[in-house]
Amino acid sequence: MSVLRWMVDKKGQTVIHTSLSLLLTKGTTCLILLAHLTIDQRTCRTLSHWRREICALEGCGEDKFPAAFATAVSVKVQCSWVYLLSSKMLRRVLCAVLFVGALPSLAEGSQGHISVVLLGATGDLAKKYLWQGLFQLYMDQVSSGHSFTFHGAALTALEPGQRLMFDVLKKLACPPDEAPNRCAVLKDQFLKLSQYHQLKTAENYTALNREIETLLRQEGLKEAGRIFYFSVPPFAYTEIARHINSSCRPPPGAWLRVVLEKPFGHDLESAQQLAAELTSFFREEEMFRVDHYLGKQAVAHILPFRDQNRQFLDPIWNRHHVERVEIVLKETVDARGRTSFYEQYGVIRDVLQNHLTEVLMFLTMELPANVSRAEEVLQCKLQAFQSLRGLEKNSAVLGQYQAYASQVQEELQKAQDYISTTPTFAGVLVHSDNLRWEGVPFLLTSGKALDERVGYVRVLFKNRAYCTQSETLRDAGHSQCKAKQIIFYIGHGALNTPAVLVSRNLFRPVMPEGSWREAVGRSDLHIFGQPLSDYYVYSPVKERDAYSVLISNIYHGRKDFFITTENLLASWAFWTPLLDSISYQPLRLYPGGVENQHLLDFEMVSGEVAFTVAEPAELLNPNRLMPSDYRTIQSKYRQSPLVSAWSEDLISQLASDMEKTARRTVARSGQFHLALSGGSSPVVLFQRLARHHYAFPWKHTHIWLVDERCVPLTDTESNFFSLHNHLLQNVRVPYFNVHPMPVHLNQRLCVEEDRGAELYAKEIVALVANASFDLVLLGVGSDGHTASLFPRSDNGLEGAQAVVLTESPVKPHQRMSLSLPLINKARQVFVLVLGKGKHDITTLLSRVGHEPRKWPVSGVSPSSGQLVWYVDYEALLG
Amino acid sequence: MSVLRWMVDKKGQTVIHTSLSLLLTKGTTCLILLAHLTIDQRTCRTLSHWRREICALEGCGEDKFPAAFATAVSVKVQCSWVYLLSSKMLRRVLCAVLFVGALPSLAEGSQGHISVVLLGATGDLAKKYLWQGLFQLYMDQVSSGHSFTFHGAALTALEPGQRLMFDVLKKLACPPDEAPNRCAVLKDQFLKLSQYHQLKTAENYTALNREIETLLRQEGLKEAGRIFYFSVPPFAYTEIARHINSSCRPPPGAWLRVVLEKPFGHDLESAQQLAAELTSFFREEEMFRVDHYLGKQAVAHILPFRDQNRQFLDPIWNRHHVERVEIVLKETVDARGRTSFYEQYGVIRDVLQNHLTEVLMFLTMELPANVSRAEEVLQCKLQAFQSLRGLEKNSAVLGQYQAYASQVQEELQKAQDYISTTPTFAGVLVHSDNLRWEGVPFLLTSGKALDERVGYVRVLFKNRAYCTQSETLRDAGHSQCKAKQIIFYIGHGALNTPAVLVSRNLFRPVMPEGSWREAVGRSDLHIFGQPLSDYYVYSPVKERDAYSVLISNIYHGRKDFFITTENLLASWAFWTPLLDSISYQPLRLYPGGVENQHLLDFEMVSGEVAFTVAEPAELLNPNRLMPSDYRTIQSKYRQSPLVSAWSEDLISQLASDMEKTARRTVARSGQFHLALSGGSSPVVLFQRLARHHYAFPWKHTHIWLVDERCVPLTDTESNFFSLHNHLLQNVRVPYFNVHPMPVHLNQRLCVEEDRGAELYAKEIVALVANASFDLVLLGVGSDGHTASLFPRSDNGLEGAQAVVLTESPVKPHQRMSLSLPLINKARQVFVLVLGKGKHDITTLLSRVGHEPRKWPVSGVSPSSGQLVWYVDYEALLG
Repeated sequence: MSVLRWMVDKKGQTVIHTSLSLLLTKGTTCLILLAHLTIDQRTCRTLSHWRREICALEGCGEDKFPAAFATAVSVKVQCSWVYLLSSKMLRRVLCAVLFVGALPSLAEGSQGHISVVLLGATGDLAKKYLWQGLFQLYMDQVSSGHSFTFHGAALTALEPGQRLMFDVLKKLACPPDEAPNRCAVLKDQFLKLSQYHQLKTAENYTALNREIETLLRQEGLKEAGRIFYFSVPPFAYTEIARHINSSCRPPPGAWLRVVLEKPFGHDLESAQQLAAELTSFFREEEMFRVDHYLGKQAVAHILPFRDQNRQFLDPIWNRHHVERVEIVLKETVDARGRTSFYEQYGVIRDVLQNHLTEVLMFLTMELPANVSRAEEVLQCKLQAFQSLRGLEKNSAVLGQYQAYASQVQEELQKAQDYISTTPTFAGVLVHSDNLRWEGVPFLLTSGKALDERVGYVRVLFKNRAYCTQSETLRDAGHSQCKAKQIIFYIGHGALNTPAVLVSRNLFRPVMPEGSWREAVGRSDLHIFGQPLSDYYVYSPVKERDAYSVLISNIYHGRKDFFITTENLLASWAFWTPLLDSISYQPLRLYPGGVENQHLLDFEMVSGEVAFTVAEPAELLNPNRLMPSDYRTIQSKYRQSPLVSAWSEDLISQLASDMEKTARRTVARSGQFHLALSGGSSPVVLFQRLARHHYAFPWKHTHIWLVDERCVPLTDTESNFFSLHNHLLQNVRVPYFNVHPMPVHLNQRLCVEEDRGAELYAKEIVALVANASFDLVLLGVGSDGHTASLFPRSDNGLEGAQAVVLTESPVKPHQRMSLSLPLINKARQVFVLVLGKGKHDITTLLSRVGHEPRKWPVSGVSPSSGQLVWYVDYEALLG
Repeated sequence: MSVLRWMVDKKGQTVIHTSLSLLLTKGTTCLILLAHLTIDQRTCRTLSHWRREICALEGCGEDKFPAAFATAVSVKVQCSWVYLLSSKMLRRVLCAVLFVGALPSLAEGSQGHISVVLLGATGDLAKKYLWQGLFQLYMDQVSSGHSFTFHGAALTALEPGQRLMFDVLKKLACPPDEAPNRCAVLKDQFLKLSQYHQLKTAENYTALNREIETLLRQEGLKEAGRIFYFSVPPFAYTEIARHINSSCRPPPGAWLRVVLEKPFGHDLESAQQLAAELTSFFREEEMFRVDHYLGKQAVAHILPFRDQNRQFLDPIWNRHHVERVEIVLKETVDARGRTSFYEQYGVIRDVLQNHLTEVLMFLTMELPANVSRAEEVLQCKLQAFQSLRGLEKNSAVLGQYQAYASQVQEELQKAQDYISTTPTFAGVLVHSDNLRWEGVPFLLTSGKALDERVGYVRVLFKNRAYCTQSETLRDAGHSQCKAKQIIFYIGHGALNTPAVLVSRNLFRPVMPEGSWREAVGRSDLHIFGQPLSDYYVYSPVKERDAYSVLISNIYHGRKDFFITTENLLASWAFWTPLLDSISYQPLRLYPGGVENQHLLDFEMVSGEVAFTVAEPAELLNPNRLMPSDYRTIQSKYRQSPLVSAWSEDLISQLASDMEKTARRTVARSGQFHLALSGGSSPVVLFQRLARHHYAFPWKHTHIWLVDERCVPLTDTESNFFSLHNHLLQNVRVPYFNVHPMPVHLNQRLCVEEDRGAELYAKEIVALVANASFDLVLLGVGSDGHTASLFPRSDNGLEGAQAVVLTESPVKPHQRMSLSLPLINKARQVFVLVLGKGKHDITTLLSRVGHEPRKWPVSGVSPSSGQLVWYVDYEALLG
C-alpha cells in the first residue's frame, strides 16, 4: 500500500477541493481520508455534496457508496495530514470521502517552506517559460509536503511591476490533460501565493528577506529553502549576487539555490572571471547554471536510456560498433532582431559550446554505476571532457547566411562595408581519444536560416552484416543489412515530438513505462533513410517543456541537470582554441532555407572537415579577405630557405615536408633516420603527424632524440615521454626503431661513468650510415640555445664527441644532447620557431653570424646537407 | 593518320570481300587501298560493283563518289599489303575502293602459322564454349597476319569422331551484330580449316605432328606456334602432357602453349604434386591454366578500370576510404546430377579458391606501372597473396542445402544415414594485412540453391559526409550522403549483363570508348539499395563469352589472364588450412531458394563471422554430431587444472582466460605484468590476442620475456622479434612497458661480464612487486624443457639467481631465461602444449613427479600462485 502525504496549506479548503478533483479526474479508484481539518464556511459542505460531486466526475452510481463509505470509516486515522491511500485491495472500493476533525496548524509535520524568487519576473524568458514552469512546479508539488510562496522581482516599481506580472500570471495554462476544474483551482491558488517585489537597492533585498521571515514566523512554518532565479542580463549578475549573499541568505538548516541563465562568459577567460566572481558569493552546490537543453525530454533521457539498456549497449557502445554520431540543432529562423546579441556570440557560443557539447558528454561519458547520483554523473562527465581531442582550425566548417550582413548593418547601425565574421552555421568534427571512442567521428552541427527546424542525436552503428538473400526478397524491418541507428529526437522536424528511436534490427529497448510509451508510427514517414516502421519509436507519455523539467530538478536539487563551474570551464577550455582561430577561417555564404541545397554539406577527410562542393562564384563576397588569404610565404633567413605562415599552417606545411622527405628517403635507402627535439613546440607537430599523415612510412622510420632531460623516461618532464604520448603511441614505429637516449642507466641518471652519451653515440654509428641523420628537427630557445646546447659553454659545440652531457640554466639542469658537429652531418635540418616569445631571438639571429658560443643555434650549418627555417608569423613579425 | 596492316590469307578473295563488308558494316568513313592483289575470277568484280555495294551498305549517294575516288587515286601505294587508312582529313571522303595489282604469295610477309589442337573436342565444354571460342578467334584474327588450322582431337576413332565434331561445328554462330554475309563466309572458311584426329596412342601424336609439319612445308608457311587445349579430365593430364612434350613440340622459334582446365588439385599438396608433374614436361611460360572467371568481361576490366581511373582511385582505394568489399557468386541451381564431382570439392574448392580469390587479387594487388605487362601484373598479384591474413575456422560460415544429402545418397549410392560434410554455401571473411587494406573486410560468398543467380564485386566506400539539407529536399543522384559504391557486375541478376557501376557522387569513370558504353538505366531498377539512376552505368559494347576472351588471350600470349603455378600454389596455401579445419565446422542446413530468408545472413564480429539468426530447430539434423560438439574439457593434469580442446578452441580459451586475468589484475593493482615465452606455439595465441581481444588492457600491461635466444632483437630467430611481429606491433603497449631481455649489450651477445641477466633481474625487481609476475606463459619442449631451462643442467633450477644464461642443445645455443624459482613466484602460470609432437612428453609428464633436473617443466610449481595446463587433444591423446 503506497501512502502519499499531501500537504494542506493556509488556504486548505481550496486544496481539499482541488485534491479531490485531482484524484477523481485522474480516474483512480481510491480512498481519501481527510482527517482533523478545520474547514471554513465556504468549504463546509456535507458529505452528500461530495458524494454527488464525486459521482458526477466518476460516473458511479450512488448506490455503490455505502460499502465504500463503510470501509473508509473502518480505517483508524491518527494524523494531522491528508492521506491518499491506494492499493489493489482498495481498488474495489470506488470512492469515499470522509471529513473528520479540523484543519491542523500549517507548520505541523511540514517538509518546510520554499520561497521562490524570480528575478526579471516581467522579462521575455519569464513570460514565455519561467512562470509557466513555476506554476507547473506548484501543480506537481502541491502535495509534496512543502509549502510555497512565489516572489516575482524586477527593477520596476511596485505598482506597475505588479500589474505587469499579474498580466503574465493570468495567462498561465494547465497541461491539456489537466481537468479544467482542478486547473482553475490551482491557478487561483498559485496567484494567491505569488507577489511582486521591486528589487533595485540593497534595502529592497533586505525588505524581501524580512517579508519572507515574517511570513514564516506568522505561519509557524519551518524554512526549507530559497530559490533565486536570475532571469537577468549577465552584467547584472554580480550585483544581484552580492545582495542575495549579504541580505537574503536563509537561516542555517535551509538551503539557498541560485539559478543562472547563460551566457556564462564568451570564452575561457571571461567564463573564469565570471565564475570567480560568483564563487565569492555562492558555494558551488548553491549554483544552478541552466542549459535548457538538459531539460529537453529526449536529452534528459540519454543517460537513463544508456543505464536501462546496459545489457544491449555494453557490447556496442564503442568504437568497434559505432560508425559515427551526429548531434544536430537546425533552425529555420535567422538572427533578425537579435543581431546585437548574435553578433557578439555566433553559432558556436550560442549552441555548440553549451547545448550540443552537453549532449556530447551524455553520449561519450562512462556510465556511473548509479546514474541517479548527480555527483557520480558529474564526475564521469568531467572525465569525458578530459578525453576530448583538441580542436583545430580545420575541425570546423563555418557559414553565414547572406542576409546576415545587411541585418547587422541595419540593426547595429554599421557602415555598408562592415564585414561580420560571425558564423551563423557551424559543422564541427569532434573526437574523443579514450579507448571507447577513439576514431569515432562526432559531428556537431547547428545553424540558422536552414531548411528545417529540428534537433536530434543520431548514433549510427557500423553495419557488419552480409545478407545473402537479395534485397527485394527480404522481409521488412528486421534485416541485419539495414542501417542500425539509435536516435534521440529532441524535437520539431518530421516527427514534431521528442522521441527515442531504435532500429528494429538492433534491439527492443527498455523504456520506463510511466514516462515513455511506444508510438504508433506514421507509415509513410521516412526518417534518416528508413521508414518509421523500421524503428521502435517511443515518445513521452506527457510532453513537458524543458523549463518545467529543469525547475522541477532545481526543486529536487538534482545538480546533474545543471552546469557546474568545472563543467562550464572544461567546455570553454575545449572550445576557446577553435573560437580563437576561426577569425582566420573563411565563412561560406549561404542563401538560407531550401536554397542552401548542398552548399552546407561537408565531409571528413583525414580528421578534418571541409565543404563538399566548391563555393559558387556568385556567393563569394569580394570584400571578404581573410587573414588566411596570406598564404605560406617562402623566403630566406640566415642565408637558408625560410618557410613562414600562421603557426597552424606552418605546422601543417612542416609535417607535409617531413612526410615527403621520409617517403623519398625510404624509397632511396629503405629507412629514414629522424632525430626529434623535445620542448613544447613540436607537440602540435607530433599530433599533426600522428593524425593526418597516414602515408608516413613509420614502419621504416628510426626515431632518435636530439636531446633529453636527465629524468626517467616515464617522467612527464622527459622529452621521450612527451614524444611517446603525442606521437609514438599513435603510430606504428617498430620497437627496434625507437631510440630513446640512455639517460637512465643502472638506476641512476646521467652519471658520467655509466657512459650513456658514449652508448648513444655507438648506437648511432652502428645504425645510421656515416652517422648522418636523414632529418634533424631542432627548436630555438629565447636565449639562442638549440638541442640541449646552451650559451656560454663549449660543450658539444665542436670536437669528436657525437653525444654530450650538458647543463641547462633551467631545471632539470642535467641534459644529454647531440653535439653540433653531429647535427651538422645531417642530410637535412629543419628548425621550428613558434610564437611571439621567440620574436626577439628571431630578430637577433637574423643579424648575427656564426657565433655558437653566444647563440648555439647560430652554429647549425649542415656541412653538406640542407637547412630550412620554419618560423611562424608571430615569431617572425612579433 | 593511323595505318592498320591487314593480312590477306590463302583465300584472299574471300577475305577481301569480308574485309570490305566488315569495314562498311562498321560504318567507318574510310579509304581502302588494296594494292598488288591477285584476285581469282569469282572475286574479280568491277569497281562499279564495289561502288554499288558500298553505297547500299552506307546509304550514300553515288554522286559523292567521283571526288572520293579522285583522292584515293592520288595516293601512291607501293606495298604488298592491304592498308586501311583513316584520319580526320579523310573522313570527308565517303568511301572509295581501288583495286590494283595482284595477290602475293601467302607465305610472303606472313606472321606465321598457328595450329590449334583441342583435346576433348567432342566433350561438353568444347561443345558449349571452346569451339565457339576458337571460331571467334578465327573471326577476330583472320586478318592478323597469322594463318590457322584447327585440330579437334579425342579418343574416339576417326570416322565417328569426325562426325561428332562436325555436328558441333555446324552449329557455330556469329555474334548477333555480325553481317550474315560475312558470317557465312567465315564459317565456311573455318570448317575448311578444321579437321578431326584420334589421339590415343603415342603414334597418334607422332602422326599429328607429322601432318602439321607436312602442311606447313607444302604451303611454304613459317610456323608461329601450337596451342594444345586440354579439355579432358585431370587424370588424363600427365599422359597427354608426356606425348605432347615428346612428340608434338614445334620446331625452335615457334612457341608451344598448353591450356589446362581446372580442377588443379584439391589442396596444397595435390596441387603441388600436379604442378610438379606438369613442370617436368612444360616450361612455366608454356602453361595456360584457365580460370574462366578471368575472361568474364567485368572481371577482366577490374585492372584496366583501376589503371584508367588512377586519378580518382589513388586517394580512395585504401582502408581509409573503403568500408568493405563483397565478392559474390550466387547460384540458383543445386548440385543435382553433379554430386560425384561436387561431393569431392564443395563450394570453397569449386568457386572461392579459384574464381573469387582471383577477383580478390585484382582488387587488392598494388597496380603495376603498366597493367598490360603480364609479368608485372603477376608479380603484384603474388605479393597480394603474401599479404593475406591466414584463415581460421571462424573466418567462414558454411551451409548445405537440405536436399543435398539425399541427392548424394541417391547419385552416389550411399546409405540412408550417410552424412555429407560438403558445404554448398560459404561466406568467408578475408583480410589483407598490408598497409593499404589493413582492417578492411573482404567478404567472399558463394552458394548453390540460393534465391538468385548473380555475380558481382561491390566496393562500398565509407561515407564521410554530413548533409545539412534534410533528405526530402535533396536532389537525387549527387548527394554526398548517399552510399558510394563501385560495382563490377559480373553477370545475371537484375541487370542481366556485365556492367561497371560507379556511384554518381563518387566520380565519372574513364572507360575505354570502343569496348564499354554508358548504358541507359531502367529507372525502376534498384540495385544495392539505390536506384540505378544513382550510378554511372557502363556495359560492354559487345558482350563476349569468357572463353572467347580467354582464347583470344591465349593467342596473344597474355599470361596475366591465366593462373601461373606460383599463383595457383599461393591460392591453395591460403585456402588449405581453412579446408583442413572445416570438417570440424558445423554446416547450417538451408531449404534452398527464396525460402532461405535470413538463414544465410551472417555478420562480422571481432574479425570472425557468424550467422546472424539462430538455426531453427526443425532444420537441425539430429545425426549431425560434429567433432566440435566435443567442447573444451576441463580436468586435472599433474594435480593442476587442465584445459583441453582442439588446438583452435584451446587457444581461444587461453586468450580469453588471459584477458580475464589481465582485466582483473589491472582493476586490482593498476598494472599487469605478463611474461611470455618464445617458440612457435604462442604465435597463434599472440595473433588471437591481437585480433580478437580489443578489451585487453594493453595500456596497463608490462610485457616481459620468459626466455630469449642470444641473437640481436631484430634477428628473425629472436623470441622478441616474433613477439613484436605477431603481437606488439598490432596492439598498443606503451614503449616503457616493453621489456625485451638485454641479450645484446655493448655490441655483443650474452657476454657474462656485460651482466645482462643481472640487469634484467634488477629491472624486474624495480618494477614488479615482490618480483612476482601476474602471469607467466610457458611452453614445453619434447625433451621436457621449459623457458630456456634444459635437462641435465642445474642452471636456473634453484638458487637466488632470478635470470640466468643457459645452453640449449639446439642452435642458437646461448640463451637467457627466467629461473625456476622466479617463475614459481608468479601469481599464475599457464603452460601451453600443442600438437602430436608433444604427445610423448605429455604422457610421460603425467606419470613423473618433481624431477626438474630430468624434465625442467616438472619443477614448475608456483609457491603461492596457480598453475593451469592448456593441452590440446593432439598432445593429450596423440
